[in-house]
Amino acid sequence: MDAKSYHMTPDEFRRWGYALVDWIAGYQERIESFPVLSQAAPGEMYGALPASPPAQGEPFDAILADVERIILPGITHWQSPNFFAFFPANASGPAILGDLLSSGLGVQGMLWATSPACTELETLMLDWLVEMLDLPGAFHSSSAGGGVIQDSASSAALCALLAARERATNLASNRQGCDGKLLAYTSSQAHSSIEKAVKIAGLGSANLRLIEVDETFAMRPDRLAAAIDQDRQAGLTPCFVSATVGTTSSSALDPLSEIGQVCRDRGVWLHVDAAMAGTAALCPEFRYIHHGLGFANSYCFNPHKWMFTNFDCDAFYVADRTALVNALSILPEYLRNQATQSGQVIDYRDWQISLGRRFRALKLWFVIRHYGVEGLRYHIRRHVELAQQFASWVEADGRFELVAPAPLNLVCFRHRGGDEINQRLLDVLNRSGALYLTHTRLADQFTLRMSIAQTHTELRHIEAAWAQIRTAAATLEH
Amino acid sequence: MDAKSYHMTPDEFRRWGYALVDWIAGYQERIESFPVLSQAAPGEMYGALPASPPAQGEPFDAILADVERIILPGITHWQSPNFFAFFPANASGPAILGDLLSSGLGVQGMLWATSPACTELETLMLDWLVEMLDLPGAFHSSSAGGGVIQDSASSAALCALLAARERATNLASNRQGCDGKLLAYTSSQAHSSIEKAVKIAGLGSANLRLIEVDETFAMRPDRLAAAIDQDRQAGLTPCFVSATVGTTSSSALDPLSEIGQVCRDRGVWLHVDAAMAGTAALCPEFRYIHHGLGFANSYCFNPHKWMFTNFDCDAFYVADRTALVNALSILPEYLRNQATQSGQVIDYRDWQISLGRRFRALKLWFVIRHYGVEGLRYHIRRHVELAQQFASWVEADGRFELVAPAPLNLVCFRHRGGDEINQRLLDVLNRSGALYLTHTRLADQFTLRMSIAQTHTELRHIEAAWAQIRTAAATLEH
Repeated sequence: MDAKSYHMTPDEFRRWGYALVDWIAGYQERIESFPVLSQAAPGEMYGALPASPPAQGEPFDAILADVERIILPGITHWQSPNFFAFFPANASGPAILGDLLSSGLGVQGMLWATSPACTELETLMLDWLVEMLDLPGAFHSSSAGGGVIQDSASSAALCALLAARERATNLASNRQGCDGKLLAYTSSQAHSSIEKAVKIAGLGSANLRLIEVDETFAMRPDRLAAAIDQDRQAGLTPCFVSATVGTTSSSALDPLSEIGQVCRDRGVWLHVDAAMAGTAALCPEFRYIHHGLGFANSYCFNPHKWMFTNFDCDAFYVADRTALVNALSILPEYLRNQATQSGQVIDYRDWQISLGRRFRALKLWFVIRHYGVEGLRYHIRRHVELAQQFASWVEADGRFELVAPAPLNLVCFRHRGGDEINQRLLDVLNRSGALYLTHTRLADQFTLRMSIAQTHTELRHIEAAWAQIRTAAATLEH
Repeated sequence: MDAKSYHMTPDEFRRWGYALVDWIAGYQERIESFPVLSQAAPGEMYGALPASPPAQGEPFDAILADVERIILPGITHWQSPNFFAFFPANASGPAILGDLLSSGLGVQGMLWATSPACTELETLMLDWLVEMLDLPGAFHSSSAGGGVIQDSASSAALCALLAARERATNLASNRQGCDGKLLAYTSSQAHSSIEKAVKIAGLGSANLRLIEVDETFAMRPDRLAAAIDQDRQAGLTPCFVSATVGTTSSSALDPLSEIGQVCRDRGVWLHVDAAMAGTAALCPEFRYIHHGLGFANSYCFNPHKWMFTNFDCDAFYVADRTALVNALSILPEYLRNQATQSGQVIDYRDWQISLGRRFRALKLWFVIRHYGVEGLRYHIRRHVELAQQFASWVEADGRFELVAPAPLNLVCFRHRGGDEINQRLLDVLNRSGALYLTHTRLADQFTLRMSIAQTHTELRHIEAAWAQIRTAAATLEH
């Protein structure tokens, strides 16, 4: 420590930076030795640290020692190859380093002028992804639309809803507020973030219609059309439909072409949420999941789920950026500048909820260049293969059953013995620390979810998980 | 690169991690050699990189070379000691390393169970800050309230507004939507994020009353009281007041005690936005800025502005966490878990807009432990002293004048020669690359803002800036 200034000098930064890089590399090497789900008790970490801040600065190695001693036991290891819970949040070396560079530069990307490279690299990366996933040309920055990085699919859905709300009301909602007559639609299987967005945006959860699904848990377009028509006849204002490509519960694929036609015929904004599954479109053989995406007014998927790019990095696209910017634009005097006035640049502050923004395109750039399209495809294919293999084992075992189609990397299954044994199975497996699974309810049945997409998950991890599941089930059956 | 898997191995991560740490340390050492405001032209960075992603992976040193060659000229150097624009976003070595650890662990903190340490360290850090800034006890987690890290003061204001909206309507807005009768209040000098939040939340910008300010640009409590009373008599529903401690334009301090009494008497939610200035309360002699904060229902300040913690890190507090959680809570089946059901833990997903969240408490923990309260106070005092020194030079020079009080680290000043010369002065200075200033309008006058709070800004940088300003002005006067 520089005694005079308290600051960490560049040389100290080198020393402790190396130490932390070593710690992270070592963490990657020993990650399988930890229980996947933290075994900590409520209050354990809070209680193990001083209740008050230190008056004087402490040496950096003391902090690192506490990371090992106090923080690590309180970590649920999302990067473990035995993490099969929720959804993936698969990180990678190049992503971590891209984020490190972002922290090191410490720039704000709210305006083009506040760091032109931050805006332009982001635009370019979002354009690269259009090509990589073969997304509609309307999402490319050379068209009337374009892309932006959001922190999450929740925020993307909220931004899409706001753009839809303002389009439907000619900006009257922004000026006069909502009137209780605006309606939104999504399937009964959609992510909770849609309901949250509908509440936040002032539409009200009673004005969100949860459309019935078919036997694959996909939205029924006929029911959507009927609901919109009925609401409009009642004098209400349908403004927003959110379809899902790969639902959180079961990876269900809403039929975009049919839904898109319903929306287009009725002038309703179509948002498509492909948070996890979208990444699959890197591979031509999985691009069918986006069939009909040309109807979408907005779309998002999360490289921070399945594309080796650490959180936060949601790729959000609109087919008409004017609708989005109209909904979210602000320009106080202290943000005015020549570049903005020229109209030649993008100011991403008008594409999101917050004003401030980090340089998140760096990690995406590092990941894409490190892996190349080839490397990314390789891993997506491998994950899908592993999931299909797991599904085949479930099918071949008479004690278990698949509960939903498994088109990609998520397998929903259950023991045939009823809800209670499945709940106990989940508890026993997670307490073991050997793996981490979570559950959902499908067709009113307690269902186990095996989500396969961690960076370092290999066949041996899937085999071990399946062995654990069978052994635990055998014990519980008696 | 591991030829078989495409992944970066732990050893490769060590190698390139060291290289990047070196690059960042070197960047810190040579940062004064770059023009502070990027001189890049629109499209320059986008055009310098390939329009399509690479099919095959590339070596990491090729990426680093492009950082140097293409990204760096497109950077506006927020970490330069000659950056005096907008507001500070001062980073530091320990903050960068805390963020690196967060990326390396790669956990999701949406639920307590998804990484207990992520939630508990965050709660503890927010409690530490209550003590460090001597904030009201109601904001401590041991009370009915508590704190959470938001990405920005914009998001904090939106969350506060939603909590206020739902408290005022008994959750009816969440269910039925807004009715166009809910009203919000802030001063005419408040940050644009308040208007943005009012639009997003469905109240409508026409239902935001911009209350008149006094000669120090602080909100007039009598005008606030009159506006609320008049609106209530008209049958409308005043629900939210946002007061500012240190406005963006001029660092004006709204009188919290008087405003607080107005709000309490009328049952209206008081939010206090101290985004930049709040950090000053680390020093007892500046705590007067929070006088009356006990009236506040919610409060935020940004360690990512003036407390050496890189973006994003806004500390947001509520005096009653139930009001916040009621407004934002969701609990779909796939997020249910025993810890949540027990009621013994905090699930921060219900304290924010998004579901997902990073482990942002680590950087705060690293910063506070590295500097100690003593080190942080030292720097805050130093920044205020430098600003006061600068203000005294302005006052002593007959060609210039102060346009607003400068209680802390922001000095608003102008050349007495009128708007045009000030605009030209700004352009000449920023084009020089030697420093970066931005402007605002105060009392309808074009005003220059000198914001002094970068990590490595010293007296010599302020002296050089003032010399540049005087020289440029002398040239323009002729």
